[in-house]
Amino acid sequence: MYDVTQIRADFPILSRQVNGKPLVYLDNGASAQKPQVVIDAMTQAYSMEYANVHRGLHYLSNLATDKYEAVRQTVARFLNAGSEHEIVFTTGSTEAINLVSYAWAAPRLQAGDEIVLSVMEHHANIVPWHFLRERQGVVLKWVEVDAKGDLDPQAVLDAIGPRTKLVAVTHMSNVLGTVVDVAAICRGAREKGVPVLVDGSQAAVHMPVDVQALGCDFYAVTGHKLYGPSGSGAIYIRAERQAEMRPFLGGGDMIREVSRDRITWADPPMKFEAGTPGIVQQIGLGVAIDYMMGLGMENIAAHEQAIRDYARSRLAGLNWLNVQGNSDTKGAIFSFTLQGSAHPHDLSTVLDKRGIAVRAGTHCAMPLMEHMGITASCRASFGLYNTVEEVDALVSALEFCHELFG
Amino acid sequence: MYDVTQIRADFPILSRQVNGKPLVYLDNGASAQKPQVVIDAMTQAYSMEYANVHRGLHYLSNLATDKYEAVRQTVARFLNAGSEHEIVFTTGSTEAINLVSYAWAAPRLQAGDEIVLSVMEHHANIVPWHFLRERQGVVLKWVEVDAKGDLDPQAVLDAIGPRTKLVAVTHMSNVLGTVVDVAAICRGAREKGVPVLVDGSQAAVHMPVDVQALGCDFYAVTGHKLYGPSGSGAIYIRAERQAEMRPFLGGGDMIREVSRDRITWADPPMKFEAGTPGIVQQIGLGVAIDYMMGLGMENIAAHEQAIRDYARSRLAGLNWLNVQGNSDTKGAIFSFTLQGSAHPHDLSTVLDKRGIAVRAGTHCAMPLMEHMGITASCRASFGLYNTVEEVDALVSALEFCHELFG
Repeated sequence: MYDVTQIRADFPILSRQVNGKPLVYLDNGASAQKPQVVIDAMTQAYSMEYANVHRGLHYLSNLATDKYEAVRQTVARFLNAGSEHEIVFTTGSTEAINLVSYAWAAPRLQAGDEIVLSVMEHHANIVPWHFLRERQGVVLKWVEVDAKGDLDPQAVLDAIGPRTKLVAVTHMSNVLGTVVDVAAICRGAREKGVPVLVDGSQAAVHMPVDVQALGCDFYAVTGHKLYGPSGSGAIYIRAERQAEMRPFLGGGDMIREVSRDRITWADPPMKFEAGTPGIVQQIGLGVAIDYMMGLGMENIAAHEQAIRDYARSRLAGLNWLNVQGNSDTKGAIFSFTLQGSAHPHDLSTVLDKRGIAVRAGTHCAMPLMEHMGITASCRASFGLYNTVEEVDALVSALEFCHELFG
Repeated sequence: MYDVTQIRADFPILSRQVNGKPLVYLDNGASAQKPQVVIDAMTQAYSMEYANVHRGLHYLSNLATDKYEAVRQTVARFLNAGSEHEIVFTTGSTEAINLVSYAWAAPRLQAGDEIVLSVMEHHANIVPWHFLRERQGVVLKWVEVDAKGDLDPQAVLDAIGPRTKLVAVTHMSNVLGTVVDVAAICRGAREKGVPVLVDGSQAAVHMPVDVQALGCDFYAVTGHKLYGPSGSGAIYIRAERQAEMRPFLGGGDMIREVSRDRITWADPPMKFEAGTPGIVQQIGLGVAIDYMMGLGMENIAAHEQAIRDYARSRLAGLNWLNVQGNSDTKGAIFSFTLQGSAHPHDLSTVLDKRGIAVRAGTHCAMPLMEHMGITASCRASFGLYNTVEEVDALVSALEFCHELFG
């Protein structure tokens, strides 16, 4: 564990007020705030060390390239990838999963081939597969979650048939907080010869991740949720899968030679990174990941589990509140609705007036909302800097809402 | 015109030294430096105003959304688009042109259909079309440039045949500095019913651009060359073309409804913007464009023309130097090689030792290098903050190289 008061001082925005109240930022599932070291690293990069990367031979270009490329090793350590060559930089999970869809799946899957996915996926891990359904007749096979919000690994494995070419599954639900036993899914899928893509957008923020231990083929993370800059990210792609992929975005850096009627590609990971990348964002992402690793992912997980336990017990005491998802594996993400007529949007607006930032809507997970029979919910999602006092503030504000709307 | 000394004070990096010498930054064609206002805007966004956009109802999310979406109007004014709905945010020109290739061209072009492009395109405006050649038999028709580096608009129009579905052409060569008469190309192509994509990555940095006056269908710009953050950008897409496009990247924000077996799309431009965008980069891009418009694009153009004229005359005096491209339209971009055996890489290394940052290599324009019969060149590319004294420093360093390698 760590001293959360000290941690909070690292994040300048946490000391501000909103609507005349101290900010209680519980929208970390949508995006996390940034520590000063990340902001400073970007300021330094732009103020004193900026140039384009890879193509230059001058001092600033070499400096920027060294700092930028060092992040690949940082991400590889963070995810325990076997090699930094298995880390492809992206602008976030959305681009990462589209990369896999366009560059690996599209040229390999035929009409009637299947992709297995759970009903609690984020749209980023749904829409790219819908493209394949619409455009080339790929079949999406959906696996249900149970009443507690758990996804049974065996149900995923049972859904794999002879035409299944990919399993695409989240490591942690952005709505329910459920942590999925991805290792069991990967183990079973591997026995059946089916690659597994894991959407780690949420999980990698909250717990240690080891892609080799998980045994997955693809693992996507998104920088802005990892306390890093917007527009940063990466995906682990197992070397065997990289070898099966054609390029996705075309442009500078990803080619070896271009002539009028012939073109050859750079080796992975460069093959999958076209044009001038998000240089300074990626440098910032490296600092953010170093910051998290400095705290220790186990410590972050322990801190957030304490928050989760406290929040779970406090919210359970509100018998007019429906909390969606109650998995034993649950992280500190709480989706809820107020019994009665109050719309989640109204709820979030009232909370905002008290300085409490939560999200309201479908959380980019419409199939899950449909599965749960609701049209929208509020979501309070906690991060490494949140406190039990903030849980109290949330509960107190919800009690106020109950009186207001009840 | 403006006082360049005052302008230079806006860019913190310009006061630094490199290898013990004052930095002479002549690598603007690769990426431009950032003024303090851009850096400050990003710091402010991350420090005090950060949240995810579009999906939130809380104060910070609304604030970030307002600042982010305001940039669409800024870009529309910058390019004189008819409507801000015709501005699609991207991570740069590479993603922008891939968007057009995947979302507009790929579903429309059949084997044997043609794309007309010039030999002086940047790889970002070549490789996406090579994908269509390789994957679906589209034919690339190349138009030559003449000995001065000019592209005759009539030659482009003459290359249009009954199977031509798109003209893809740069507005300004990143190697030769040639400004192409894009308006004439668009006028003629429109008469033949062929849309035109313009790569404005360089041109929009150096001169006023009016997409309505040009009459183009697509106009891509890249933020990091526009004195804005890495990973920012936009593309103007005429509304009629937007209506013909399917989505490209799939994920949050670009959908209206997602169910298990059906999906509907948001209206443009959102339809083409998936997932959490480069929030803070785009906010920074807006500030960068405001900065440029504050100076006045005509003033920037006039300043750089003075630099160009001076540099052209000084470089012409070095009879052991080959300068590639001598168009009357040329901007302040100079590609050159030293007569004799010195490799451009060695040249750039020696220049770097004197604090002068230039680029050496193929400049992501291999077909042009092949056309010119060279394998690499040095390139000095000027921006709004460069001075005639920096031209002198370049010439003096080149004279030193001539003695060293001569």
